[in-house]
Amino acid sequence: MTDVNKKHEAGLARPVFQGGKTVPEWRKDPIADRWVVVAPERSKRPSDFRVPRRDRKEPGRCPLCPGHEADTPPEVLAYGDPARPSDTPGWRVRVVPNKFPAVRDLPPETGRRGLYEWQSGAGRHEVVVETPDHVPDLDGQSPGQVTDVLRAWAERSRELRRDPRWRYVQVLKNTGWSAGASLEHTHSQIIAIPFVPAALNRELAGMEAYQQATGRCVLCDAVSQELTNRRRLVHDGGSFVAFTPFAARFPAEVWIAPREHAPDFAALGTALLRALADTLLAVLRGLSRALGAPPYNLVLHTAPAGDDRAAYFHWHLEISPRLIITAGFELGTGYYVNPLPPEEAAAWLRRANETREERS
Amino acid sequence: MTDVNKKHEAGLARPVFQGGKTVPEWRKDPIADRWVVVAPERSKRPSDFRVPRRDRKEPGRCPLCPGHEADTPPEVLAYGDPARPSDTPGWRVRVVPNKFPAVRDLPPETGRRGLYEWQSGAGRHEVVVETPDHVPDLDGQSPGQVTDVLRAWAERSRELRRDPRWRYVQVLKNTGWSAGASLEHTHSQIIAIPFVPAALNRELAGMEAYQQATGRCVLCDAVSQELTNRRRLVHDGGSFVAFTPFAARFPAEVWIAPREHAPDFAALGTALLRALADTLLAVLRGLSRALGAPPYNLVLHTAPAGDDRAAYFHWHLEISPRLIITAGFELGTGYYVNPLPPEEAAAWLRRANETREERS
Repeated sequence: MTDVNKKHEAGLARPVFQGGKTVPEWRKDPIADRWVVVAPERSKRPSDFRVPRRDRKEPGRCPLCPGHEADTPPEVLAYGDPARPSDTPGWRVRVVPNKFPAVRDLPPETGRRGLYEWQSGAGRHEVVVETPDHVPDLDGQSPGQVTDVLRAWAERSRELRRDPRWRYVQVLKNTGWSAGASLEHTHSQIIAIPFVPAALNRELAGMEAYQQATGRCVLCDAVSQELTNRRRLVHDGGSFVAFTPFAARFPAEVWIAPREHAPDFAALGTALLRALADTLLAVLRGLSRALGAPPYNLVLHTAPAGDDRAAYFHWHLEISPRLIITAGFELGTGYYVNPLPPEEAAAWLRRANETREERS
Repeated sequence: MTDVNKKHEAGLARPVFQGGKTVPEWRKDPIADRWVVVAPERSKRPSDFRVPRRDRKEPGRCPLCPGHEADTPPEVLAYGDPARPSDTPGWRVRVVPNKFPAVRDLPPETGRRGLYEWQSGAGRHEVVVETPDHVPDLDGQSPGQVTDVLRAWAERSRELRRDPRWRYVQVLKNTGWSAGASLEHTHSQIIAIPFVPAALNRELAGMEAYQQATGRCVLCDAVSQELTNRRRLVHDGGSFVAFTPFAARFPAEVWIAPREHAPDFAALGTALLRALADTLLAVLRGLSRALGAPPYNLVLHTAPAGDDRAAYFHWHLEISPRLIITAGFELGTGYYVNPLPPEEAAAWLRRANETREERS
């Protein structure tokens, strides 16, 4: 093995060089089923890693604000004035490639270094600028504006799936610096990757196993149970239901799921996108009122295109406020300690929404 | 299902009451193979969750300092003056039950609420006070002192395994507030739980699969490759090898593994514990010099007692500095983005150690 190692690893100060540039690389852990993208940033020095970087621009210099369209790569989608030239103001929602992407539009390339597997750091990484307003979250936006954001997620997901290199399109939103947002202006991210993620594979397996054991969908059953006993119900939006999950990992974690079984978020039509926007706004406003605009991560879980098990999948959004620090226990076991029972979190969030409704 | 839900969930403002007290509860996610312990803290109000709490005591009031033994539950193990009465000064290392445990010594109880599974929040949660000195980390301690810490991990692990309720004993160390430490005084934690963690099961499966495919251990092969090409080597301590893993999830993540195959950390004898202390100190001092005493999580991965696959397992320590924020991508996919190639991190850490050696 020695010679193989030397041959494959000699001279690689960076994981991959291409045309003199540093490019990202997917690497597989040889023990766990886990891929990591090593996405080197050339300018980093040891001291840059001493504290998490806070990279907030003042509103006047925000690269996501109208008038600064030249500060981002050219847009791939925008909703707004149809007469408007690309990359000029007049948009309501704008989607651009990430200027500092984790993954890039690279040709597929795979290889081994000794016992280790790698692939070129292929993927697409886009940013959804959710409103022209320089605000830190969506909670103050109109239902129509939020509908446009959701429509952009669906439209870009469908477009990115046409490329057979991408096995999954991950939609997510990090809000607040301590939840990983590096820009203050409210935005979400769309990341197309060449794998079905391990975490999603586990959900697909779980949903398939329940279906085969019972003939039903586990999330359909969970939604039904939440609507019946209402202890964890946060908002019943008709077509969409928001609840704190029974085994919530985080204080005030909220899931939003369609009431009727549906595998694919990206197949939603206009009326359902609008209904989802209403439910999402109710949840975000409740979190903001109950917890003071907490940092949070929002993650879309949807069926991978072309997977045999896709029909079993029930898509949903998972919204995880970042109010506690996950640490060694979570890293080591994959399990979580949650100090706030989801039944109490749901009660707070319901009360926060009732107070709002009384005032309005 | 409706009646079942009502019957099982009625009247539970807290997940479980026992003698009027709130106790923790294990809950299983119905989709993913994931347990969460809901460990309610009675005093919490919504506002308590608005920002992560910093709970550092001044040195004079630290409950882990000598002279404050009455501020913790009675010790379960201590190394020190043999003539010393329990729970008095004179100890070098002291192990006590956690005063605010995530899990408790409860009788096993399992049940369902509608479609959801739960178990009583059974387990043991102990704190290892690693030195009488009120210092934030082990990096300034003597090799003998660190050997005592490692010996306490091994001794308590063996003791806790005697209880057939506990399927795994998780040893971990959170250092620095942003890595989840709630007390400044350097300490580690030992948590016995009634499951083999899902994350460990995946490692067991990966090691077994490699063994069956090649007849060898994947971590033996990895150690051999790291010692041969040396690009990710951090410290060669003879019996123990420290390296940055090929698919490192975090900047400057370091693993320490025994050079020779060994499933069980808790079986280490005195000489090997001392050798491990030397390697751990070299790594911690390198991290501290290169990165300015970064917050980090240290997690022990060792074979579960009584598991058929235990012989395939190669125990190791994973040390993960917390220099970047994991966010929606990691939560959604289970994959990671690491901006620092492990080859560079290893070079920094080697240089940090060389500088130290030149000065000493």
